[in-house]
Amino acid sequence: MGRENTHTVIFQPGDIVCQGIPHGASLLRVALLEGVHINASCGGTGTCGKCKVEIPEGQYEGGRSAKLSEEEFKADLRLACRVKVMGDLTVIIPEESRMGDSVALTHERRPGPGRVLSPQDLEQLVTGWSVDPVVKKFAVALKPPDAANNINDLDRLKLGLKSQHGIEAASVAFRVIRDLPEALRAQDWSATATTVETARGSKVIQVTPGDRTGEDYSIVLDVGTTSIYAQLLDLNEGKTLAQSSEYNGQISYGEDVITRIVHSQRPGGRKQLQEAVVSTISQVVEKVLDKGGVDRCQISHMVAAGNTTMTHLLTDVNPKFIRIAPYTPAATFLPPVRADELGIDVCDHVHLYTFPCVSSYVGGDIVSGIIGSGVFQTDKITLYIDIGTNGEAVVGNSEWLVATSCSAGPAFEGGGIRHGMRATRGAIEAVQVDPATGEPHILTIAGKKPIGICGSGIIDAVAELLEAGILRQNGKFNEDAAGEWLRTNEDGQWEYVLARQEYTGIGKDIVITEPDIDNLARAKGAVFAGVTTLLNSVGMDLDAVEQVYVAGGFGKYLQVDRAAAIGLFPEMEPEKFTFVGNGSLLGARLVSFSKDMLKAAENVARTMTNIELSDNQFFMDEYMAAMFFPHTNMKWFPRMDGILQNLK
Amino acid sequence: MGRENTHTVIFQPGDIVCQGIPHGASLLRVALLEGVHINASCGGTGTCGKCKVEIPEGQYEGGRSAKLSEEEFKADLRLACRVKVMGDLTVIIPEESRMGDSVALTHERRPGPGRVLSPQDLEQLVTGWSVDPVVKKFAVALKPPDAANNINDLDRLKLGLKSQHGIEAASVAFRVIRDLPEALRAQDWSATATTVETARGSKVIQVTPGDRTGEDYSIVLDVGTTSIYAQLLDLNEGKTLAQSSEYNGQISYGEDVITRIVHSQRPGGRKQLQEAVVSTISQVVEKVLDKGGVDRCQISHMVAAGNTTMTHLLTDVNPKFIRIAPYTPAATFLPPVRADELGIDVCDHVHLYTFPCVSSYVGGDIVSGIIGSGVFQTDKITLYIDIGTNGEAVVGNSEWLVATSCSAGPAFEGGGIRHGMRATRGAIEAVQVDPATGEPHILTIAGKKPIGICGSGIIDAVAELLEAGILRQNGKFNEDAAGEWLRTNEDGQWEYVLARQEYTGIGKDIVITEPDIDNLARAKGAVFAGVTTLLNSVGMDLDAVEQVYVAGGFGKYLQVDRAAAIGLFPEMEPEKFTFVGNGSLLGARLVSFSKDMLKAAENVARTMTNIELSDNQFFMDEYMAAMFFPHTNMKWFPRMDGILQNLK
Repeated sequence: MGRENTHTVIFQPGDIVCQGIPHGASLLRVALLEGVHINASCGGTGTCGKCKVEIPEGQYEGGRSAKLSEEEFKADLRLACRVKVMGDLTVIIPEESRMGDSVALTHERRPGPGRVLSPQDLEQLVTGWSVDPVVKKFAVALKPPDAANNINDLDRLKLGLKSQHGIEAASVAFRVIRDLPEALRAQDWSATATTVETARGSKVIQVTPGDRTGEDYSIVLDVGTTSIYAQLLDLNEGKTLAQSSEYNGQISYGEDVITRIVHSQRPGGRKQLQEAVVSTISQVVEKVLDKGGVDRCQISHMVAAGNTTMTHLLTDVNPKFIRIAPYTPAATFLPPVRADELGIDVCDHVHLYTFPCVSSYVGGDIVSGIIGSGVFQTDKITLYIDIGTNGEAVVGNSEWLVATSCSAGPAFEGGGIRHGMRATRGAIEAVQVDPATGEPHILTIAGKKPIGICGSGIIDAVAELLEAGILRQNGKFNEDAAGEWLRTNEDGQWEYVLARQEYTGIGKDIVITEPDIDNLARAKGAVFAGVTTLLNSVGMDLDAVEQVYVAGGFGKYLQVDRAAAIGLFPEMEPEKFTFVGNGSLLGARLVSFSKDMLKAAENVARTMTNIELSDNQFFMDEYMAAMFFPHTNMKWFPRMDGILQNLK
Repeated sequence: MGRENTHTVIFQPGDIVCQGIPHGASLLRVALLEGVHINASCGGTGTCGKCKVEIPEGQYEGGRSAKLSEEEFKADLRLACRVKVMGDLTVIIPEESRMGDSVALTHERRPGPGRVLSPQDLEQLVTGWSVDPVVKKFAVALKPPDAANNINDLDRLKLGLKSQHGIEAASVAFRVIRDLPEALRAQDWSATATTVETARGSKVIQVTPGDRTGEDYSIVLDVGTTSIYAQLLDLNEGKTLAQSSEYNGQISYGEDVITRIVHSQRPGGRKQLQEAVVSTISQVVEKVLDKGGVDRCQISHMVAAGNTTMTHLLTDVNPKFIRIAPYTPAATFLPPVRADELGIDVCDHVHLYTFPCVSSYVGGDIVSGIIGSGVFQTDKITLYIDIGTNGEAVVGNSEWLVATSCSAGPAFEGGGIRHGMRATRGAIEAVQVDPATGEPHILTIAGKKPIGICGSGIIDAVAELLEAGILRQNGKFNEDAAGEWLRTNEDGQWEYVLARQEYTGIGKDIVITEPDIDNLARAKGAVFAGVTTLLNSVGMDLDAVEQVYVAGGFGKYLQVDRAAAIGLFPEMEPEKFTFVGNGSLLGARLVSFSKDMLKAAENVARTMTNIELSDNQFFMDEYMAAMFFPHTNMKWFPRMDGILQNLK
């Protein structure tokens, strides 16, 4: 055993040692992700029975199957897709389970997957801040009024805050004043004031009887075009109590920001979209409150990070001109707004702070990601890439930041792909192709029957097809490889079969078509060209990049080497890559915990330079070159260059 | 003729010359107010026929009546109550119309009535300010966005305000941002921003397409316990376009602030009271907008002055502890609040600024009066008295101010008086008593049949009864004067008949009873004792007072000498008295026109010292002495002292 709760698996023949395998991992998945090939046609669902392996020694669970005879079982044969790794193992791959008759290792040993951060690691991305929220609670014990001192209740409270906490309360919300007399007297002039720091000083937004300083919570939100994530934070303890997510209810009005903006201009459309996203937010708020055991009136404030369109739609600001050249948002910095006025079911003192945006297509989610990943305070020249429904890239460090939006399109989320789907149960998320036979070997999420393919699966598939010589660099299939897996369909288009009807959950074959590959080429080409254009705008190229942060929902499933094989990323040492997952939520957390981080976020939004790619000739040239797999300029892809040279 | 549009009337016998009589004045009213007695029992309604006079020369209208024979008419006899003065006149009072057989002048020629200010005079009470409202409109012409400059609309607006008007817009209201894109583009990037100055800088509260700077209006309100007054102001021109008033709709829940506070504590009561006053405000707003021909969306802001309870109830702040010792309001300074949130039907950018209060019983109406009457900038030691449903007194000058509330009770508005009523049509507003016969001679408002008696009528009546020896200084009737007009009623109480059933509009006699006089004694005693206590609190007495400002609805009908005769005011040179009418509305106007005046108002509220009269022994002693008519200490009433000595 290596680190606690990880194990070592040795595959034979070939003496391939895989270390750091998580406890309970699927053996088939381990093999695939490590580049060790075991036949598997059903996605790991236990139905094809092809992934037989012999396990002479070690700790594991499962692996028995009706697909194995009693004799096979006694001979230590197991189905790899059913085996969970529970300790160090030695695994012998029988000839029948190997790809064709070749070696177990499909290609040179893959580079590592890049650094996927644990929650603890994520907390340490940003340094030098302490829990000191912009919204705080203070207990006061006031002297009751008498004939000698009968000043009004409001001034009595302000004097108490000043003498007992040194707070100059610049203002007190009207709603607080209205019932202040009863609030102060309910527990004999002991009360708790919730204050928010503003540019003018402290503003009192809530007064409750007694000492309630122990109950101070916030909710942070990542408001994505596709999904909304929420976390419930304990502001006293500086920790997360619960988290939850839901699909954004706006999806029924359109998949991307452009169709949503179009809908917002229809009669009543803007209101429909605002109510749809608020309805989803109310659901995730409800869930985290339930999970965390916190009452909604104990919430002190909310922080939301979203792209520019989502921020407009959530706050009911007209987004019309975001989509019309020259692409002007109504505003990039919005004042805090009362959450209940937006329709969010929390108490009326709760204000929603929305992350400032930079431009129409570089939004608060990116600003939040730059905060959450610590890019704003690093010396290293960092490339930050967020791949969601759209793709955004930022280059810079603590001194300067340039950003752009890449119009990647939804291919990475399965959009525009014949059998594309989001990364949910039944999605093919990893693919290997036998270079000798062209046979695919797939893994699905949750080991369910394949029903489609998600972003990481598409990237894997295209990378494998390229390396197997089945797909050409121009995105067209190699007709010489036609056979059982590569065929033309009834429309005369070439397509590659990923899973046969008998193993899928949709009653037909799951395939990848040339139009699918075109869409992927456009998506990855836009991101790559966006990055090189961004670098060029500051007189740099990829050599200057010292580290890469990858954010976005699919970040953590993505294999750096596969992404480089198709030309989404350049080939770089895996150590340079860090997957931060939901960078936006990370930044929203920090801003909720610390007023210094809030100032930092505003500073990032103000100083980040937006580079527009439309009408940018350099970008257009780069884009054309980056539409090839991996690129026309192989300088950044030496490993892939070697593989492709060998195929010729 | 003296001043333009005023005339001179000479009464005979006695050669009594009355100058400065307004064009169109009722001859009977002129005589009564000048102290010239003409018999009149019906209040000037033309029904008793007693006020026959001979007018041998001069210009007048009317005076013919069925009560006059053809012979009498030919002999130039007219009914004085029907005659309008249209030029200089000589009037001979026949013996039959004189009181008994004595001289025409009932007593020494009365001192002047004090200075009643014209609207022009009122404007000049306060000096050194210019029209420079806290809410202003600015036109901007912005450069449309293009690819080279596509910053967001909000920042584009802010930059325009800065470069074109030097305004650093600290913030822009969320409501403005929501539809800013269309507002800026509707008239090709020409727009008008309405800004309000705050402690933090300018806040943009409205943006409308095109140049709308010519349309800048405000509405100011005096929110009284009994009545609400509104004025529509043109902020560009610095002038009043319309005014209106209505009874406060809260009256149905109680006549005074105490009963309203009690009602506010019933379930739903606070909301009922808030809606009632807002309903009245909406009516007066509607009226002034109609009269002024201004659209409600052209209103930039509103200013309201009210006593502390009215201010709480209007803004839905709990007033409960205003009436419970030690009398603490929820707040004295309230932040501006959106008028539409209160339910007032104006556009959603309009904020209502409420005048700051000093204490539970010295409210924003008094602060506003101190501003409006210029007391805050005078060198002279000034006594400011506001007599409304309650009575408040302030003493001071530009250097210092002390204030108190007198708990006068509603007697001056007819409350607690058997036949008391407000100063409306049919109210007896002036009374003379024939010292020889005890017969009353009355005038009613608008020459209608008497239906009751208002504040000035009660003061007149009591003063006259004292001077005629019918009423004793202790407020008891002199039984020796019993006869036709002074009698005991069925309860054995003494009462004085002001108008007989045959001349009244209520089908019975209108009388003044001893309990009525007790109530008046308490009311005037509280005001006078409040004033002397206030002066004593700063080591002064009435000698120190250099001028007296009298505010309140009935101020302008009040005769200074009659008020001094009952001991409401001390005897002073009439020149020292100025009647300012509605002082609160005057201050609200100034604050609406000028941000300097707003600062001055806040300074007045902060620096004014409140003197509590409850549990104040000096006040209690003064109050007991001031319950006598005019007072036990006759030092301040030398004229009255002489009259009363003569009666003995």
